[in-house]
Amino acid sequence: MADEAAVRAQADTVRRLKQEKAEPDEIAKEVAKLLEMKAQLGDEGKSKFVLKTPKGTRDYSPKQMAIRERVFNAIINCFKRHGAEVIDTPVFELKETLTGKYGEDSKLIYDLKDQGGELLSLRYDLTVPFARYLAMNKITNIKRYHIAKVYRRDNPAMTRGRYREFYQCDFDIAGQFDPMIPDAECLKIVHEILSELQLGDFLIKVNDRRILDGMFAVCGVPDSKFRTICSSVDKLDKMPWDDVRSEMVGEKGLSPEAADRIGEYVQLHGGLDLIEQLLQDPKLSQNKLAKEGLGDMKLLFEYLTLFGITGKISFDLSLARGLDYYTGVIFEAVLLQQENDHVEESVSVGSVAGGGRYDGLVGMFDPKGRKVPCVGVSIGIERIFSIMEQKVEASAEKIRTTETQVLVASAQKKLLEERLKLISELWDAGIKAEMLYKKNPKLLNQLQYCEDTGIPLVAIVGEQELKDGVVKLRVVATREEVDVRRESLVEEIKTRTSQS
Amino acid sequence: MADEAAVRAQADTVRRLKQEKAEPDEIAKEVAKLLEMKAQLGDEGKSKFVLKTPKGTRDYSPKQMAIRERVFNAIINCFKRHGAEVIDTPVFELKETLTGKYGEDSKLIYDLKDQGGELLSLRYDLTVPFARYLAMNKITNIKRYHIAKVYRRDNPAMTRGRYREFYQCDFDIAGQFDPMIPDAECLKIVHEILSELQLGDFLIKVNDRRILDGMFAVCGVPDSKFRTICSSVDKLDKMPWDDVRSEMVGEKGLSPEAADRIGEYVQLHGGLDLIEQLLQDPKLSQNKLAKEGLGDMKLLFEYLTLFGITGKISFDLSLARGLDYYTGVIFEAVLLQQENDHVEESVSVGSVAGGGRYDGLVGMFDPKGRKVPCVGVSIGIERIFSIMEQKVEASAEKIRTTETQVLVASAQKKLLEERLKLISELWDAGIKAEMLYKKNPKLLNQLQYCEDTGIPLVAIVGEQELKDGVVKLRVVATREEVDVRRESLVEEIKTRTSQS
Repeated sequence: MADEAAVRAQADTVRRLKQEKAEPDEIAKEVAKLLEMKAQLGDEGKSKFVLKTPKGTRDYSPKQMAIRERVFNAIINCFKRHGAEVIDTPVFELKETLTGKYGEDSKLIYDLKDQGGELLSLRYDLTVPFARYLAMNKITNIKRYHIAKVYRRDNPAMTRGRYREFYQCDFDIAGQFDPMIPDAECLKIVHEILSELQLGDFLIKVNDRRILDGMFAVCGVPDSKFRTICSSVDKLDKMPWDDVRSEMVGEKGLSPEAADRIGEYVQLHGGLDLIEQLLQDPKLSQNKLAKEGLGDMKLLFEYLTLFGITGKISFDLSLARGLDYYTGVIFEAVLLQQENDHVEESVSVGSVAGGGRYDGLVGMFDPKGRKVPCVGVSIGIERIFSIMEQKVEASAEKIRTTETQVLVASAQKKLLEERLKLISELWDAGIKAEMLYKKNPKLLNQLQYCEDTGIPLVAIVGEQELKDGVVKLRVVATREEVDVRRESLVEEIKTRTSQS
Repeated sequence: MADEAAVRAQADTVRRLKQEKAEPDEIAKEVAKLLEMKAQLGDEGKSKFVLKTPKGTRDYSPKQMAIRERVFNAIINCFKRHGAEVIDTPVFELKETLTGKYGEDSKLIYDLKDQGGELLSLRYDLTVPFARYLAMNKITNIKRYHIAKVYRRDNPAMTRGRYREFYQCDFDIAGQFDPMIPDAECLKIVHEILSELQLGDFLIKVNDRRILDGMFAVCGVPDSKFRTICSSVDKLDKMPWDDVRSEMVGEKGLSPEAADRIGEYVQLHGGLDLIEQLLQDPKLSQNKLAKEGLGDMKLLFEYLTLFGITGKISFDLSLARGLDYYTGVIFEAVLLQQENDHVEESVSVGSVAGGGRYDGLVGMFDPKGRKVPCVGVSIGIERIFSIMEQKVEASAEKIRTTETQVLVASAQKKLLEERLKLISELWDAGIKAEMLYKKNPKLLNQLQYCEDTGIPLVAIVGEQELKDGVVKLRVVATREEVDVRRESLVEEIKTRTSQS
């Protein structure tokens, strides 16, 4: 039998021969030897199975799930506060459904293997499936949220909350409405959620694709290069301007003059004052698209003023957003600094929400090209999870992972049947109850289990209690014990746990 | 330009030539012509995109989601009542993780395309990922639930609630415990959930893989054929015995005598009496495995008697369950008949839950083969959804898809700013509020929106109200209107909607 070391040595031989550009048939002979040795390894090779989740993915433990539920509840409550319905779509779509929607990011889509039948891909976001859903069901008017996992074959950076499988929490408003009213609500939602989660200071950057396109036009970017130059601008939050400029000029063939003109604009950020200033800008104000975008941006800021949230909003000309489908307002929320010393900076700073207007996407699916204007926001939950996890870790807070109200315990041996009868009564009455799965557990072990898991009450059956028709109810925190008549037990437990 | 009809005619020509076994280069020439015509079609061909979800999958509309939430809540409440924690795992696993766990069903696994990197498959159930999770984290003791979608390339029958993407709701108990206590709890859980959902009469069939294997042994089935014969027995709920017998003898090469002996056993079903009878069976009682299984089955029935649920439990020797990993008790819950005339029989009858003991699965993942005994139940939600949907459809019940408490409306034009200010106040106070996204909506349209969506209250701002510092609050159902001081509005809305 070949052993692993021999296989490795043989592989080295093959590699060396290739490097030395040996005769092809000599290499072929050694390769054949190698393959034979590998085949001989057989079962042993099989046992080398690595016990892990796929790259860029993770499990959630019960404790992580408890934190996740908290974050989800805050987000879902906000979406419901704004009157959203909820939908769900399949985890995969026809490959064609995703084609041509994501620009340069398309290479990150997970495809399914062709096993005979339709060609499928895992969803890359929740926006394209939403647009497909609207077109398919001829819906022209809906406000919905959707919370689900999406998939991107990106370079994972898990300590910073970047995964290949991750949740998106999307809220979108579809329909033909008066300008900027739904757009303003999306920003209000981001503001509400980030405020409620107490993640520290944040800023919501806002821009408009029409302003960007107008800017590209007046800077002398050819029409055909708008989208790719837009992708470059999008990298400004991760790369310095000089590198972005090199990419524009070097890789993307933009003239240095045009790049420099862009460079001047993308430094600008501010509020209503900047909008007014640009509306007076001799070049931009001559461009129809830019003028439209700036007019709407002004309206948006007026509405945000009524909402009282302009303090955290910045009109930022460097914001571009990577995705192809945006047509109007775009925005992105970033965490600014750590509020909490225990949270590592790498986790606490960066984008946690984004979105914008995509008036053309539904029309790409509609057989007659009918458009349904849409605007929406996506909350990126993974980074928020990471921050919350680190906060909980650093705090003294003990998180319960179950809601059990009472442990059904026995004080003596041979009472399994009595425990089973009692717990069955409690379950049927809606009480959350557990018992140890042992015939004769020690009372100490039963009490310890309550300490470990945070169960507040113990219902103890013993021979004397059975005779007396009572159950001994013990409060774990105080060690107080009272005899409760069996028929009053359910009420007693409900009363004592009603605050939780 | 080629048109579609011409392309079709050309394709027919190619087909005809092939059938007539024409000269290869003549065919090649016509094929080339065909391809060229198809290429000319170009964009037109592209627009032939079919707007649909992948085969065997579906979207959930807001109304369906409302029903889904109800079913989930009943199930989650039950799992929590039994003290379960919750976990989550990725939607895909390393392909190797799933290999060799599902027997003949493995062909139904969805693989991902090899895009360079790990070979991945979509999860086929939640049990194997759970076992992988336990082994990976060296957990020897946990009671958890997991609700998530799983994927099977099966023949979909969507009207009967059979999909390729479907939810499983799993509850499992892992750990070394005294026999049959966790197993009995799993059956109690199935009983509680099916009772609460009021789906009509049901029966939980129970068997044990050890009894099956013992039975196969005493019937003369060779060891190597146990699993495949087990798969055949599993089909008895869909096929008559004669067909199953043919499969055993014809396809699987079992001797007709052995098949007939199996045929006698698999007709048997009953309760404690049948267990006692089989414990006396001269052949079965001599088989160590069968005897163990029967002893545990007796214990299980004793516990189920204490739970008061034996009325819906049937010990059934024809129950086999398809999956490879079961090692002890197995069970399956079936709906027996329709309680409700509006539910089609095809939906209302069939398996809605299943599970069993799998003591070896975790050991298959542990590097040292350490075993963690497990037992669990999986609730198959899709058929239950279908039944609930049909029930709701048939009833007069109007399902709300939002929780909005109040619509912020205006009685006159030019009050958009006032509406925005008021709704912002309400949102910030935690009130669920909506407004129409129009600058100047008609009051009638605003009231109609409340009627359509079930919003109970309208807060109307008008010029007079603004002067007086009040808001007119209208109860949609009664058309009653009262002026409420602006500072009391939040309290008033909370009071009036607190019952919901």
